[in-house]
Amino acid sequence: MKEVTLKQIAENLGISITTVSKALKDYPDVSKKTKTLVKQEAKKLRYKPNVFAVNLRTRESKTVGLIIPEVVHHFFSSVINGIIEQAEKKGYLVIILQSNESYKLEKKQVDLLISKRVDGIMISLANKTVDISHLKRVKELEVPLVMFDKISKLMDCSKIIINDREAAYTATKHLIDSGCKRIAHFRGALLPQNSIDRFLGYKKALEDHGITYDSSLVYICENVDYEDGINAAKKLLEDHDDVDGIFAITDLAAIGAISVFNERGIRVPDDISIMGFSNWFVSSAITPSLSTVDQPGYEMGVKTFKLLYKEMKARRKNKEFEPKTVELETRLIKRNST
Amino acid sequence: MKEVTLKQIAENLGISITTVSKALKDYPDVSKKTKTLVKQEAKKLRYKPNVFAVNLRTRESKTVGLIIPEVVHHFFSSVINGIIEQAEKKGYLVIILQSNESYKLEKKQVDLLISKRVDGIMISLANKTVDISHLKRVKELEVPLVMFDKISKLMDCSKIIINDREAAYTATKHLIDSGCKRIAHFRGALLPQNSIDRFLGYKKALEDHGITYDSSLVYICENVDYEDGINAAKKLLEDHDDVDGIFAITDLAAIGAISVFNERGIRVPDDISIMGFSNWFVSSAITPSLSTVDQPGYEMGVKTFKLLYKEMKARRKNKEFEPKTVELETRLIKRNST
Repeated sequence: MKEVTLKQIAENLGISITTVSKALKDYPDVSKKTKTLVKQEAKKLRYKPNVFAVNLRTRESKTVGLIIPEVVHHFFSSVINGIIEQAEKKGYLVIILQSNESYKLEKKQVDLLISKRVDGIMISLANKTVDISHLKRVKELEVPLVMFDKISKLMDCSKIIINDREAAYTATKHLIDSGCKRIAHFRGALLPQNSIDRFLGYKKALEDHGITYDSSLVYICENVDYEDGINAAKKLLEDHDDVDGIFAITDLAAIGAISVFNERGIRVPDDISIMGFSNWFVSSAITPSLSTVDQPGYEMGVKTFKLLYKEMKARRKNKEFEPKTVELETRLIKRNST
Repeated sequence: MKEVTLKQIAENLGISITTVSKALKDYPDVSKKTKTLVKQEAKKLRYKPNVFAVNLRTRESKTVGLIIPEVVHHFFSSVINGIIEQAEKKGYLVIILQSNESYKLEKKQVDLLISKRVDGIMISLANKTVDISHLKRVKELEVPLVMFDKISKLMDCSKIIINDREAAYTATKHLIDSGCKRIAHFRGALLPQNSIDRFLGYKKALEDHGITYDSSLVYICENVDYEDGINAAKKLLEDHDDVDGIFAITDLAAIGAISVFNERGIRVPDDISIMGFSNWFVSSAITPSLSTVDQPGYEMGVKTFKLLYKEMKARRKNKEFEPKTVELETRLIKRNST
């Protein structure tokens, strides 16, 4: 398609480019008649204003980037919901990239967003990410950056998190308070900080309540999903017959476990109690309904963009910005699985 | 932040802008030594290449827009997954906007994407959308456009759909084949085409099998979600005591209904059979597991981008493009709720 410019419209009408530009933007100092003429001509020529380029005055693209491990996951899609709603309110568009938990892809996506001149980047790390030099580069280039949920402690930037260790401690303590004495843990992969912290919270709760930690009761759920929960539950039933409680790293894994127990006639919570994590709405719909920890996804999205916006605003005004870490509240939700 | 240009790097090193540009792009006709010098200087000055602007040679932004009614819905997040994966493979970034089922917002978002110069637009309509002049404008401006799932029959553009009427017919027939004689329908809002088509498929199946259609058995689930399913099921139990089957427009609504029946001791499928729609993975995890129609979200996303890509390619080469409608296969999935 041939590109139509302001110049062409101006030439066709025999007026100045400035007048055309002002007419299209509805400036008060252009007559109504001229505005109508210009708009008709623009429509006729199929003129499209070019605002995708970096705004030359403000040097802003009004576009931000979001890198997220996966989009098909209730927690992450809630975060996306919070981010895009908040961004739109402030006049920013969001480019969303999915790292599929791959470090290599995440690195490539960070470079891509930088080269696309986004005004800021929001990221939740892939499970495989250890080296954070790609994020250090974002910082060096002075591109505003906020990490959320899966963060790196080594990175000096704004972060929106929950206190995973404390929340996991509370969840495990709830199982202990309900009378459980042999508590298994379905944990996530070895690297992500939130997976480590939830494991440590579980361990600490056992120790504080006189229960000896037994590493054979810890099962790794690499993708923390429904299938992983099914497999871990099956393995647990083969390995141990005395476990009376499970703290699962996600509701998905917990629901997988419940489906195995339902199938085999093992009664939840009479024979075994189960705690999830995240408070996915389905957790209240299954039988028995699942006790869990509420992890505020939508709120995390809103706060992530708000913090990024603050940094972008400071950068625009050439002001110093001190990175902040915001910790969101979690809540223990008691239902019928414990 | 002050903008660093190729010119500054060239001036600092006393070489030409062309050489700087070539060095940064690793052209073979620039010496290794010069490349190193240029790259060091670029790093020192925090130079960022500007590729966010429309590429002047190809007139492409390599960015496409996606407008979707909601992101926190398993079907739609699966579509997003398919779209962004496919787009990234072809070197395109995706801006995602959520219309929240609002016509007004959807219209604004279409204008915004046009003004941002995206190379193409993918859209699933909001429930409230009747007037499609905003989409006709996309067409007039020759911006490639693909509609998916919730489409408008009045719009002449490419579409990726399923045969909702046929799929609903099959689902209802499955209830009839299982012995149901009084079948209720939890339908969606009145406007969306897929909601209309699923209703018509339900009605036709009844008529073809000698069952009189009774409009009092049709309940509207405005948001087709879990809460809607709960409310419709409660209302149904108040209104009728002879219903022995339900065809719900989504798995979510069906699962809401199951939770009501479980709570009240009504046995599924012995007292009442339930069919869902979409084959959300949770539908196999609940008790009883839900019979449903598989609606391929991920595949719909992949096909939507592929079709958009074809149109963008044709447009780039100034070739004619004939809009296509692709109908994806659905599958009846029999589980324990029927």
